[in-house]
Amino acid sequence: MTNLNVGILNETDSASLSLLDANVAGCRAYALAKELYPICRSITGAGLRQTLHRLRDQLPTLTIHEVPSGTPCFDWTVPNEWTIREAYIEGPDGSRIVDFSDSNLHVVNYSCPVDAVLSLEDLRPHLHSIPEMPDAIPYVTSYYKERWGFCLPHKVLQSLAPGEYRAKIDSSISPGSLTYGEVILPGTSSNEVFLSTYVCHPSLANNELSGPVVATEILQWLSTLPSRRYTYRAVFLPETIGSVAYLSRNLDILKANVVAGFNVTCVGDDRQYSYLPSRNGKTLADRAALHALKHHAGAEKYLTYTFLDRGSDERQYCSPGVDLPIASLMRSKYGEYPEYHTSLDNLDLITETGLSGSIALLAKALTAIESNTVYRTTVLCEPQLGRRGLYPTLGTRTGSTAVRTLMNVLAYADGSHDLLSIAEMLNLPVWDLKSATDLLATHGLLAEVSTN
Amino acid sequence: MTNLNVGILNETDSASLSLLDANVAGCRAYALAKELYPICRSITGAGLRQTLHRLRDQLPTLTIHEVPSGTPCFDWTVPNEWTIREAYIEGPDGSRIVDFSDSNLHVVNYSCPVDAVLSLEDLRPHLHSIPEMPDAIPYVTSYYKERWGFCLPHKVLQSLAPGEYRAKIDSSISPGSLTYGEVILPGTSSNEVFLSTYVCHPSLANNELSGPVVATEILQWLSTLPSRRYTYRAVFLPETIGSVAYLSRNLDILKANVVAGFNVTCVGDDRQYSYLPSRNGKTLADRAALHALKHHAGAEKYLTYTFLDRGSDERQYCSPGVDLPIASLMRSKYGEYPEYHTSLDNLDLITETGLSGSIALLAKALTAIESNTVYRTTVLCEPQLGRRGLYPTLGTRTGSTAVRTLMNVLAYADGSHDLLSIAEMLNLPVWDLKSATDLLATHGLLAEVSTN
Amino acid sequence: MTNLNVGILNETDSASLSLLDANVAGCRAYALAKELYPICRSITGAGLRQTLHRLRDQLPTLTIHEVPSGTPCFDWTVPNEWTIREAYIEGPDGSRIVDFSDSNLHVVNYSCPVDAVLSLEDLRPHLHSIPEMPDAIPYVTSYYKERWGFCLPHKVLQSLAPGEYRAKIDSSISPGSLTYGEVILPGTSSNEVFLSTYVCHPSLANNELSGPVVATEILQWLSTLPSRRYTYRAVFLPETIGSVAYLSRNLDILKANVVAGFNVTCVGDDRQYSYLPSRNGKTLADRAALHALKHHAGAEKYLTYTFLDRGSDERQYCSPGVDLPIASLMRSKYGEYPEYHTSLDNLDLITETGLSGSIALLAKALTAIESNTVYRTTVLCEPQLGRRGLYPTLGTRTGSTAVRTLMNVLAYADGSHDLLSIAEMLNLPVWDLKSATDLLATHGLLAEVSTN
Repeated sequence: MTNLNVGILNETDSASLSLLDANVAGCRAYALAKELYPICRSITGAGLRQTLHRLRDQLPTLTIHEVPSGTPCFDWTVPNEWTIREAYIEGPDGSRIVDFSDSNLHVVNYSCPVDAVLSLEDLRPHLHSIPEMPDAIPYVTSYYKERWGFCLPHKVLQSLAPGEYRAKIDSSISPGSLTYGEVILPGTSSNEVFLSTYVCHPSLANNELSGPVVATEILQWLSTLPSRRYTYRAVFLPETIGSVAYLSRNLDILKANVVAGFNVTCVGDDRQYSYLPSRNGKTLADRAALHALKHHAGAEKYLTYTFLDRGSDERQYCSPGVDLPIASLMRSKYGEYPEYHTSLDNLDLITETGLSGSIALLAKALTAIESNTVYRTTVLCEPQLGRRGLYPTLGTRTGSTAVRTLMNVLAYADGSHDLLSIAEMLNLPVWDLKSATDLLATHGLLAEVSTN
Repeated sequence: MTNLNVGILNETDSASLSLLDANVAGCRAYALAKELYPICRSITGAGLRQTLHRLRDQLPTLTIHEVPSGTPCFDWTVPNEWTIREAYIEGPDGSRIVDFSDSNLHVVNYSCPVDAVLSLEDLRPHLHSIPEMPDAIPYVTSYYKERWGFCLPHKVLQSLAPGEYRAKIDSSISPGSLTYGEVILPGTSSNEVFLSTYVCHPSLANNELSGPVVATEILQWLSTLPSRRYTYRAVFLPETIGSVAYLSRNLDILKANVVAGFNVTCVGDDRQYSYLPSRNGKTLADRAALHALKHHAGAEKYLTYTFLDRGSDERQYCSPGVDLPIASLMRSKYGEYPEYHTSLDNLDLITETGLSGSIALLAKALTAIESNTVYRTTVLCEPQLGRRGLYPTLGTRTGSTAVRTLMNVLAYADGSHDLLSIAEMLNLPVWDLKSATDLLATHGLLAEVSTN
Repeated sequence: MTNLNVGILNETDSASLSLLDANVAGCRAYALAKELYPICRSITGAGLRQTLHRLRDQLPTLTIHEVPSGTPCFDWTVPNEWTIREAYIEGPDGSRIVDFSDSNLHVVNYSCPVDAVLSLEDLRPHLHSIPEMPDAIPYVTSYYKERWGFCLPHKVLQSLAPGEYRAKIDSSISPGSLTYGEVILPGTSSNEVFLSTYVCHPSLANNELSGPVVATEILQWLSTLPSRRYTYRAVFLPETIGSVAYLSRNLDILKANVVAGFNVTCVGDDRQYSYLPSRNGKTLADRAALHALKHHAGAEKYLTYTFLDRGSDERQYCSPGVDLPIASLMRSKYGEYPEYHTSLDNLDLITETGLSGSIALLAKALTAIESNTVYRTTVLCEPQLGRRGLYPTLGTRTGSTAVRTLMNVLAYADGSHDLLSIAEMLNLPVWDLKSATDLLATHGLLAEVSTN
């Protein structure tokens, strides 16, 4: 295992960040993903509920909410709950061609029950494969139209001989509820930072499990901080219907309080980092994301998508009238890597280092938000730093970088530049300015400006 | 004849645009230009009047207005009317060197009468030629200072032998009026789109006749539309004094109502398209012009001038205090092509395809303006398109472009982005979004926001 | 002597600028610098006072102000006054190793008195040199901590043999005052243009004397102008404590009146021009500086620093809450050239042409500010220039640049574009537009818009 040295711990002595050892967190996150991998999740049902209960072991303050089937949520309605017990196809010789117990991807998610003997010709429309990826099982869903189907490698499909097949799905779709989890970590301010991740995909690793396990580590880290400026609200929910349902119940409070947030998904592999902006594109979330990427991944070492490339819950969070400041920090983005929505997006695709880097990146983005105070100098003109021991008493040809940083922070602490914009001007990580602002505040030279 | 396939008809099934067959329109426009070509137009007088009467045959609602000589128009005064009957120079041997009946360019436009016998030396200051274009007759005017003169090819001028010449111009400059034509096509809104073209040049094809004949085709097309959102106001007038006179009579109504407009000139040859912005540079006319150019000519396949390169009636329309949103869509711009203001700017320079392409371009710019509604979604979050049959019920790895366009229109239908800005973001022609907005509006998912 | 032809006199016939012969001014400035060079200046004391008295010979309206030691100035306090009479080190053989009478850089500026015999080892901490510049004496100061020291070439330091040395500094640091000079040249407006330059360095030429001598020439030129729109306020003061003291006494009036200003320093050598913006970066001072640089030095023929590179009194003038519009126009900037703060920054480094070019550049920047009127046309549409003899009466294929400039000034004289922005659009020096605006104003076609 190489390249593990991505943790914030190794890069800074900043008090709050030092509580996070991203390397250790990455390993824990991988272990949790491995544990959750076999569960057959969907947008409702036992697998989703089981996953949330397991997450609650890590996050004791996680509350689990049930929204009954039939509940209207803006333009949507919570669907009936899906239960799946068994599913397989038996070939003409009685052998099982595909079996849900081998992979929960084998059944079209939300399939209605079936138990029928069909000719290959009649079975064929119910079979899904990817001709250009003959070894992969595709991930297919049919949440809102009753149908049944199986997914299988194309090479298996092609090997099927004519004859009679038995298709058996022991499932049910009936009134129940949609389940989601919520964690709220209070801060000194009622203003909130919002994290959203989804838990509705079956055995898929980068595009799904990486999100909840990284979010879990981030929340554990946040919960250990000696102080939090912002209140943190995190949700673990089914994609689309889950975020729509959550918004329909919490829109006013979210609109009133959320200053920034991230949709956490596709954060598990080892490939390039990527960023997808909020619809607005210039929110605090976007600024913090780009700042973290520049100083974590390196300028131009990451991919930038546009909001036109969106595809996850930012579709709801950033929709007109909702307009929350939610951006996405990812590794390989959904829809953009070959293994996406296939059985190849598995535990081999995500890595401890991949998860660890994403945890560190997200922690830095959150730290940027936490750090983003607006200051004003308390004296007109430059203060006389020398008599406070902050400036060399001997004037020579050169100056020190640390003194220069103090002077630059003072020069822009005008009550309108926030610390993030000052850090951008200085091309320094905002978390590295903390020692300067602390020092100046200690000497009474900087005052915080109340912003909200 | 090649490359005729430029018509909007061939490119889109949009209801309103499909009524225009640009190829046919280009042929009709050329025929009309040919018919109008021999008439000796000026900023006043019989040729101008005759031209407007001929245009009224095509445009029955065209009204013809007379502004009496001496009428003050802002800083200007309508000049006396010019009448020209005959003009020639006879050489020492009695032969006619130049004759107005051969080309109306031979006489300096607005020449006062003369009938004199002069030596070549005395005649010489009254002769105009272009040494570097020895075969071309230049176009010269003297509207506001009484003088007389002849224009002739430089090689003819150089061949003149010493001797006695008779210069005869049978003209008069006396009280009369300035004539202009006006067409108003009412729309559902009193807000107006304004078109201006000039009809004061004698036998000149690209820099002049192309303008009125293209404007005529555009107005005929507009008059056949099943509905028009905007009221269209078009004027056919003499350049400068005509637009100044028109503005002095209509400034308040124009300032109150005009949302966009174009000065239509130099739209007849087959060369590269060009664009000259309004003074403001960012008006709806500019945005529509650039949008039409990108999708008609292709991005960077056209020339962009600045307002500093202006030279036609936008000088008045965009002057301080007038400030109308008027841009220019052209082919070879006045002053920028070798044949400009010479006898070489003739019926060989303009072509049916040249005119046809300009008609299609202008029609697209106007369609962009007509299409430019501001929408707002009627539901919070994304609507559930699936239950309306607008979204695939089977979730797989890929999506369709058409569905993507629906989603993108919804994502930006926030009551502040107009459809033109959404089309620019999606890099699609705004007229191609009509089917998406119609579909969404039919399903009650989009509402028009009243903008003015 | 080459390249002397930089004077404004040679480049324009503009009435106000023609009073400045930059070549002659550069020669005078050099002569004055030579005269002031030997004086031992500091942030207080006799040398500073002597320098100001000499400047008053050139600038009779210069007033000299004394601020008593101990006076609080924002976060600072005026220090005791430094007097230096004699300073030297005698070597073991009684010979003088370094002597203040050879160079006033030899003593650490503001050294407290000492008269001691020390071993080389004990003396060593009091000796300052630059190992990488073995021939240069460094310039070292210790204004706010009592210490004594000597500065000497590194090669001399290295040649010192063990033994007993006598260090003698006959100085005193005791209550007195800080001295500064101020010139106010009234204009027709109470709005002010502010110039600041510092006079606290001992024998240093580019980084110091160039500033006061150039400022002196500029003030002499300004005082001879037949009319001044703005009131000019210029100060000659010690850096940092002087500008802090001046601001503490004059902040309200400066904030109310100053529309633009320049910190005048490092304007004496022959190398590339440079520009350091105000903190705001877009003030009238910045715009005028960039305009002057483009048309004096040539676009991209000068260096642009950022406000992060600041280091002189703009640190105070642009500090939060002070926020004056002060930029810097320089040659080789402090801290950026090898001779900086050493004995090599001497009269060989600065030149008559270097000073002359800077004088011309600064005069152009000030002329840009003086010229920067906002005009509005007095008529709607273009005026009929022809009947005023301002437009050719014969219409042909080409136009004149001068007429074009008239038309362009009219086109943008809309009461919101100031003349500097019009000049930028036309890519012409704003001072070259004066003949056009004068001509149009004479004909009653332009009116000044009152801006403040």
